[in-house]
Amino acid sequence: MQFCSSICLTAKVPVRVQSLHMNSTTVNDPSSIAAVPVPKWSQKTIVLPPLKRGCHLITSKIVKEIQPDLSAFQCGLAHLFLHHTSASLTINENYDYDVRDDTETFLNRIVPEGPSAPWKHTLEGPDDMPAHIKSSMFGCALTIPISTGKLNMGTWQGIWLCEHRDYPTARTLVVTLNGI
Amino acid sequence: MQFCSSICLTAKVPVRVQSLHMNSTTVNDPSSIAAVPVPKWSQKTIVLPPLKRGCHLITSKIVKEIQPDLSAFQCGLAHLFLHHTSASLTINENYDYDVRDDTETFLNRIVPEGPSAPWKHTLEGPDDMPAHIKSSMFGCALTIPISTGKLNMGTWQGIWLCEHRDYPTARTLVVTLNGI
Amino acid sequence: MQFCSSICLTAKVPVRVQSLHMNSTTVNDPSSIAAVPVPKWSQKTIVLPPLKRGCHLITSKIVKEIQPDLSAFQCGLAHLFLHHTSASLTINENYDYDVRDDTETFLNRIVPEGPSAPWKHTLEGPDDMPAHIKSSMFGCALTIPISTGKLNMGTWQGIWLCEHRDYPTARTLVVTLNGI
Repeated sequence: MQFCSSICLTAKVPVRVQSLHMNSTTVNDPSSIAAVPVPKWSQKTIVLPPLKRGCHLITSKIVKEIQPDLSAFQCGLAHLFLHHTSASLTINENYDYDVRDDTETFLNRIVPEGPSAPWKHTLEGPDDMPAHIKSSMFGCALTIPISTGKLNMGTWQGIWLCEHRDYPTARTLVVTLNGI
Repeated sequence: MQFCSSICLTAKVPVRVQSLHMNSTTVNDPSSIAAVPVPKWSQKTIVLPPLKRGCHLITSKIVKEIQPDLSAFQCGLAHLFLHHTSASLTINENYDYDVRDDTETFLNRIVPEGPSAPWKHTLEGPDDMPAHIKSSMFGCALTIPISTGKLNMGTWQGIWLCEHRDYPTARTLVVTLNGI
Repeated sequence: MQFCSSICLTAKVPVRVQSLHMNSTTVNDPSSIAAVPVPKWSQKTIVLPPLKRGCHLITSKIVKEIQPDLSAFQCGLAHLFLHHTSASLTINENYDYDVRDDTETFLNRIVPEGPSAPWKHTLEGPDDMPAHIKSSMFGCALTIPISTGKLNMGTWQGIWLCEHRDYPTARTLVVTLNGI
């Protein structure tokens, strides 16, 4: 591993640190095992109803499904994994619908679709190969920190499901929670 | 964190939940510590042989390497991390070779290469700077859920290694398994 | 899950394995609980000073902040999560500044900006919608393996913060460490 560059060395404003949780002190003391928060795992499969082609905010849907488990974690990670190769998960703006609409516009401009597109894989329709490409561009998985029983995201962040097919189907997600 | 949008509120089809694992009940009871599944960690460095420029399905190769450890996890996460900046890992279609070929076509169309490309970083060959860009587009890491001793992916999902250099070399991955 | 393709089946060079850590042997033996490394969690919020539009190497800054905690982990994962939708995190080359500069050039060429751009979301300035798109292209999160107290990255890999706004602000990251 190599470190740093001229840019990060010359930054003048100090880095500020706001919070820290650590539970390693009693690890080697058998008499205090009960005091060590034992890590918990939770895993749930969620099936989302079909959503039309485009980008959709699904934060509240996801949180509603995992809330009972989520609230038990003081510190941890939430992992969302989509079981599909023609849709994607991303984190982006949670307020203005136009941002989702413009993102769909971008994806359609950057990935050719239709008779002039160069794809060999066309058996499943003209929107299928573009959907596969968009799925790898944004990815099918997210990992989000958990703090004090909640997803620890920024004020303007939300979870998006991007549906890349014209005739959408239900979409399956595996949500795995891990923490203390 | 802010929740929801008009779209997810108006979805008519109920979300279906299929499975749930949780092991928090005995955490504060010292007499039952043996009943709490103690989290396990496994970490392995795998070196893949050189693969030609393009997208390659490597699911079986990866699973073969981690199988003995993987089968011991009832619930967890598998993390794959590529040690390189000119190749990438992604999850996409596992059946039709054309999908991988079309994805390589897309990457080559979207990232300029050759004399007319605008890159300043050209010392390592005309394919090097495009390779770095493609690496950040798809990313060098994947996290996949583990359920009952197996990678819990969708029917059509596979793990791809995308080699972005013309003269490929062996590629190193660190695979970390964590779970109960 | 489906496995393999013609390509990975025909690879001639054997996969080499370099290291393995595993701690599952004593899990069901209550008398040996003290011998099982109890997983640790650490979570920290870091505020980075404003950085100008472009790609910046921040590895040393991040490592400096998490070093005291990081060194306590023999095996684990480090998760970095940016609290913003107009900047991104990625892993790429850590040596030549031109690689970062060329990546910024690529992002600006691929995402239209200015009067001719097709965006509806323009209230927050011409650079705002392009910034959201770039944020989803590279993503706002990274997961990196930890081995023997250090981030286990490749020789040429570094952590980049990509600032996509013209008038940057301080950026908040949540760093979560988990391991044994």
